[in-house]
Amino acid sequence: MPEGSTPNGSNHVAADALKGLVERIERLEEEKKALADDIREVYGEAKASGFDVKILRKVIALRRMASHDRREQEELLEVYMAALGMQ
Amino acid sequence: MPEGSTPNGSNHVAADALKGLVERIERLEEEKKALADDIREVYGEAKASGFDVKILRKVIALRRMASHDRREQEELLEVYMAALGMQ
Repeated sequence: MPEGSTPNGSNHVAADALKGLVERIERLEEEKKALADDIREVYGEAKASGFDVKILRKVIALRRMASHDRREQEELLEVYMAALGMQ
Repeated sequence: MPEGSTPNGSNHVAADALKGLVERIERLEEEKKALADDIREVYGEAKASGFDVKILRKVIALRRMASHDRREQEELLEVYMAALGMQ
């Protein structure tokens, strides 16, 4: 950030804060990318073992939906129970 | 997997392998989601500090493009140098 080298004090502080934020985001993005690569590798392994990757992705999406629906139902159940003074 | 409980041996092995793959993918997906949440949090922090999140996203995208272009140029330079026997 060019502002960092100017004598303007308030810009200097903002530049340092900005640099810190950008570095944190970029490091996290890198870690996220590494995980995405790992996931791709596991799918590659699955394919090499003879599994159909398209169906595997489908089954994982269905499991995620099922788990999401279950959580939603549990939350709704709690809300209803709380409304009825059952908690 | 229902196949896992059938007496069919080969299906049983596939079910175990499949279960292992699905569990690995789901664990990695969870870690990836946690990182995405962390990134969102840093953007939230940036916003709370008065930075414009849209511009921050833009600057990070530009930095990624610049780093990608630089890497691409370095690779191409190596290819040309190798072709000219400079390596």
